[in-house]
Amino acid sequence: MDRQLETFFNPQGVAVIGASSNPAKLSYGVVHNLKEHGYPGPIYPVNPGAGEILRLKAYPSIAEVPDPIELAVIMVGAAQVAETLEACGRRGLKNVIVISGGFKEAGPDGAELERSLPTIAARYHMRLIGPNCVGVMDTHTPLDTTFITAMPVPGAIGFASHSGAVCGGTIDWAIDVGLGFSRIASLGNQVDVDLADGLRMLYADPHTRVISLYAEGLPDGRRFVEAAAEVYRQKPVVVLKAGRTSAGTRAVASHTGALAGAGRAYQAACHRAGVIVVNSLQEQNDVAAALALQPLPQGPRIVLLTNAGGPAALSADALDEFGMKMADLTPQTQDRLRAVTPRGALVGNPVDMLGGPQAEMYTKTLRVLLQDPGVDMILALFVPQAITPVDDVAAAIVLGAKDAPKPVAACLVGGHSIANAVRRLHAGGVPVYTDPNRAARALAGLWEYAQLRTRPDLTPTPVANVNREQARRLLAAAWEAKGRHFLDAETAAQVAAAYGIRVPRSGLAQTADQAVALAESFGYPVVVKLIAADVVHKADVGGIALNLGHADAMRAAFARMVGFHAGALSRPGSAAMVQQMAPAGQEVILGMQRDPQFGPLLMFGLGGLYVEVLRDVSFRLAPLNEHDAETLIAETAAGKILKGVRGQPPGDLAAVVDTLRRVGQLVSDFPCLAELDLNPLIVGPLGQGAWAVDARMAVDQPPR
Amino acid sequence: MDRQLETFFNPQGVAVIGASSNPAKLSYGVVHNLKEHGYPGPIYPVNPGAGEILRLKAYPSIAEVPDPIELAVIMVGAAQVAETLEACGRRGLKNVIVISGGFKEAGPDGAELERSLPTIAARYHMRLIGPNCVGVMDTHTPLDTTFITAMPVPGAIGFASHSGAVCGGTIDWAIDVGLGFSRIASLGNQVDVDLADGLRMLYADPHTRVISLYAEGLPDGRRFVEAAAEVYRQKPVVVLKAGRTSAGTRAVASHTGALAGAGRAYQAACHRAGVIVVNSLQEQNDVAAALALQPLPQGPRIVLLTNAGGPAALSADALDEFGMKMADLTPQTQDRLRAVTPRGALVGNPVDMLGGPQAEMYTKTLRVLLQDPGVDMILALFVPQAITPVDDVAAAIVLGAKDAPKPVAACLVGGHSIANAVRRLHAGGVPVYTDPNRAARALAGLWEYAQLRTRPDLTPTPVANVNREQARRLLAAAWEAKGRHFLDAETAAQVAAAYGIRVPRSGLAQTADQAVALAESFGYPVVVKLIAADVVHKADVGGIALNLGHADAMRAAFARMVGFHAGALSRPGSAAMVQQMAPAGQEVILGMQRDPQFGPLLMFGLGGLYVEVLRDVSFRLAPLNEHDAETLIAETAAGKILKGVRGQPPGDLAAVVDTLRRVGQLVSDFPCLAELDLNPLIVGPLGQGAWAVDARMAVDQPPR
Repeated sequence: MDRQLETFFNPQGVAVIGASSNPAKLSYGVVHNLKEHGYPGPIYPVNPGAGEILRLKAYPSIAEVPDPIELAVIMVGAAQVAETLEACGRRGLKNVIVISGGFKEAGPDGAELERSLPTIAARYHMRLIGPNCVGVMDTHTPLDTTFITAMPVPGAIGFASHSGAVCGGTIDWAIDVGLGFSRIASLGNQVDVDLADGLRMLYADPHTRVISLYAEGLPDGRRFVEAAAEVYRQKPVVVLKAGRTSAGTRAVASHTGALAGAGRAYQAACHRAGVIVVNSLQEQNDVAAALALQPLPQGPRIVLLTNAGGPAALSADALDEFGMKMADLTPQTQDRLRAVTPRGALVGNPVDMLGGPQAEMYTKTLRVLLQDPGVDMILALFVPQAITPVDDVAAAIVLGAKDAPKPVAACLVGGHSIANAVRRLHAGGVPVYTDPNRAARALAGLWEYAQLRTRPDLTPTPVANVNREQARRLLAAAWEAKGRHFLDAETAAQVAAAYGIRVPRSGLAQTADQAVALAESFGYPVVVKLIAADVVHKADVGGIALNLGHADAMRAAFARMVGFHAGALSRPGSAAMVQQMAPAGQEVILGMQRDPQFGPLLMFGLGGLYVEVLRDVSFRLAPLNEHDAETLIAETAAGKILKGVRGQPPGDLAAVVDTLRRVGQLVSDFPCLAELDLNPLIVGPLGQGAWAVDARMAVDQPPR
Repeated sequence: MDRQLETFFNPQGVAVIGASSNPAKLSYGVVHNLKEHGYPGPIYPVNPGAGEILRLKAYPSIAEVPDPIELAVIMVGAAQVAETLEACGRRGLKNVIVISGGFKEAGPDGAELERSLPTIAARYHMRLIGPNCVGVMDTHTPLDTTFITAMPVPGAIGFASHSGAVCGGTIDWAIDVGLGFSRIASLGNQVDVDLADGLRMLYADPHTRVISLYAEGLPDGRRFVEAAAEVYRQKPVVVLKAGRTSAGTRAVASHTGALAGAGRAYQAACHRAGVIVVNSLQEQNDVAAALALQPLPQGPRIVLLTNAGGPAALSADALDEFGMKMADLTPQTQDRLRAVTPRGALVGNPVDMLGGPQAEMYTKTLRVLLQDPGVDMILALFVPQAITPVDDVAAAIVLGAKDAPKPVAACLVGGHSIANAVRRLHAGGVPVYTDPNRAARALAGLWEYAQLRTRPDLTPTPVANVNREQARRLLAAAWEAKGRHFLDAETAAQVAAAYGIRVPRSGLAQTADQAVALAESFGYPVVVKLIAADVVHKADVGGIALNLGHADAMRAAFARMVGFHAGALSRPGSAAMVQQMAPAGQEVILGMQRDPQFGPLLMFGLGGLYVEVLRDVSFRLAPLNEHDAETLIAETAAGKILKGVRGQPPGDLAAVVDTLRRVGQLVSDFPCLAELDLNPLIVGPLGQGAWAVDARMAVDQPPR
């Protein structure tokens, strides 16, 4: 861990530059919070006009602040921030938080002001959080550099957020429900410390068990993916990203482009990163709470304990959607349950204690259920009724769950009457939800993480036997000839072949005689395709003839094609491509689209004419290792068909894995490839390979 | 409206039988609530031992209670309920609520006690709510027959619930957030008044704008569908059903059975019923609140008004998933916004007023946005920050939304600090959510309902030209011969043909000569299929030969088939079926599975070998009219392919619609048909029809 980043949360001395003595000002609030929320080190208000703020001596400038001083919080006008930062650098500070707003978020003038900040910070080897943020909290130090009125209780959730407002809302809610946090960092405009750093700061913190991140865009997405991939096996990373739908959409001409809509690259990135994806603020806190407070389950089998059937059924519905299983209780467990539940209680799963169980029954049943070897986790539901005090039930659940080696969560349905019980459960280490579906999502998150941390390694491995130089030459020549364009089919096939992707042998012909000669050199059967710059989807316009078995068939097809497209072959760049015919097999598509944040994105799925109608596709970041390629294939219907369905012979899956890896390597080696479609890739029977019979590739820059 | 049901909410006089004078008892609570929550009529505690309860005269029995008396609330032990009900009947009561538990929910003994209740009620022409419920509330009468400690403020949401506990939780929450309800009815075990009645009671209530229902099973699902379909155009119906996954799953042998998993029938039923489906308690209340408080939008175009970019982006993401559109603001609107928002505010969509707008800016911007003709609805988001008091923002939003002809909702992020603002917004008629995704779901619900209430009629229409008698004869003969079984292919084809479903002509042959004779009578090409009781999926085992063009091919295929299945044709019931070959076309599947709650369920989608892998299927209740059949087809990839994709000729969609309607009619006319698969149904080009080349049907009872 970077010791310098750690100083943000454990500084020896904090200066607040721009501190006001006016309690209505936010900068007064920061001094107040540092002092009142228990920061143990010296606090130095800096304000040229004030003698004392909150009975702390104020200094006219940062230069005059004495040692020890390790962190400055800057709250001056945007126009003064640069010079203040310089002053901090000269004073020897290495950690600065700029709370002041009025930068990029406020328009072009602010963006101009912002530009100098990272340069100044770098010059003095300072790390800078902000600008336009609310600062950081560490509940264990304790340290609170924000102006937010209260601090959550100490806990195990570390939260880093692009948005200060979201920090404020989260803190407000956390205090309400008594949920503990370890560190909270508002990162603002992230001119220096970004979300990947935020992740590392939370990873390094021994009090943080869960890393919870809120992002509004991930400009350097790959850096974030790599940072998360390094830590996710040690600590769970829960990520919420706003703005999936506003992601830049550019005009696309390929199938992959059409299918790789908003969110697909982000999904693939999260898969590679090993993070738990959540889609709302509520879901983020719900999942983080479960991960912070409870151990991980050994499996997906859950038992529901309830005093009302309906809410348990709602949980069961939601758990099923998340892929969880209802545990089967042993007869011994059921016998033991009968002894500790009311008469008439149902001792299957859900365990339904009916309307008014005594509170202590929750403790007893939890203890029984925890001992059943078929139970991996427990959700205790309670709907307050007139008879049983909800606070007593909360206490009973806490007692029953105490030191349990399996996760236990609670669900209470209601409003004001459960508020105190919610806080009591959180204080006792039991995550609690006010809706059965929310509880289900949170528990599913525990199992999701248990699986993530033990999944096979996804680190990409290089592919041997690729002719990079050959591909580079082809791409360079294409770029020089035409600049940004879709390569002609022959060149695309040659590029693919250079990377060991199996393509049918082929050649170009201008006349029927040339076509026949080529076909005879490859051996029949062959395919003939019209190559013309203005014809993109050849099958739509009669420009393909398949399975030609002899010279006469070839001549007839040739004549027909020329007839359909009068003059086609006389235009420059046009020709007929004669090609070996691939074996019969399943048509799949393998494509690549380059994402501005996450780089090359591979697509795999059912191919052929209906690819955009069937939409049977799944995505991964490129490059990828064999395991990742296998799971990509297995996620699709195409993958299931290739394994052999209903008596059909299986396809050559190993060849598909190999082709995916080669394409992944190709597009990673050559950022100049903007889009790529192999459609169809024909997958022959076992041992007969995967044939890229139609390769489309676009270049948009010269190869490196 | 049934005047007798209305009496539950507006009775002249209420007796509480089993009322206790002990404040710790629930029956004391009922008397207390009737009195303290303002019921204006006479209240009669009935208790043989008590002289007075809460200063109300107590009567020793219901017989002695004077007029006026229209409703009895029974809270005696389960064993005494039947005789108490008799006594109510003798006293001339027509409306009774049985709160007492200990019936079906408590096991077999309770179920036995419950059995007599509907009989007694019917004998005295009484309507009975319960047993095992918490009674009813009407906030406008006002009337509160429950023991729940508080009553929500008067409002427009009517809620009927299977579960009393869920009523309690909902009420607790409603009071917390200040959301008004009109009527709340806890229906319990529903021995008489069921959820369809509950729906009608809420529909009839002039104070109820939204019908919100919570179900734990819908035993008579069709009755519920019909009740909802009658009312949904006048009042929105929001339905949450617990226990989708625990729905009885029985062994199935057909594709349709395998694909019509839990929840599909319920989905199809909700589509027919015109209800808005929600999946959690929270979502139910969120959607109901929007429908209760706001007008319906004219379109899906929404504008977001915010003081923080992130939460707005989260809303936008969720709105996009719900099919909503971000509104484009006119230049005039943008100019007007600049005049009423802080310097630097972004006046696109979202309208971002940045960190600390003045509260009244919410009023001004709302007024500007409401006038933009491109805006259909508005979501105002506010994340509390130190500067702007959240209560003032709430007041400003209420003022800006007042009397608006377009829906306005609010989203406040936080916990305790927003609690008062939430109540203020609800009191001012603005639905408010504490998570951007929840707000998005609720607003999407408004547009969903606006579309539902104006959608084309889905009432099934009968199909002409079916030979019902012929089908009945075939099914009766099949049942008599073999009881519960899958019909042989020939019989299934004849049943289909009787209903005007196009099937290739066919006949059975035991020898190659017979097969050739049949083929010559139909004309080549033909198909030959092995028919054997022990072979279900013929294609898996080489039991089909296609496209036989002449007698030699037929003889060769026949010999091969007999070779694969040595002795196959000598077993009883086995034969070779020779069949006309359908035209080339798209293979689709059309199936039916009978759901225990909702009856016959039709399935349509991509057919052929991979139907269970592709899972491109959608469902409807049978029978169905043309419009409903068309939308069913359009929901699938198969439907898109049939419309003509990428230069392919369109298929005969009208023939598919016709076949769907004929199958729907067939399975509705004959409940003895338990399962049906037409796979594939081959859809020829326009005008060439849809051919059911392989029909499978199971009977499980004699035809009526």
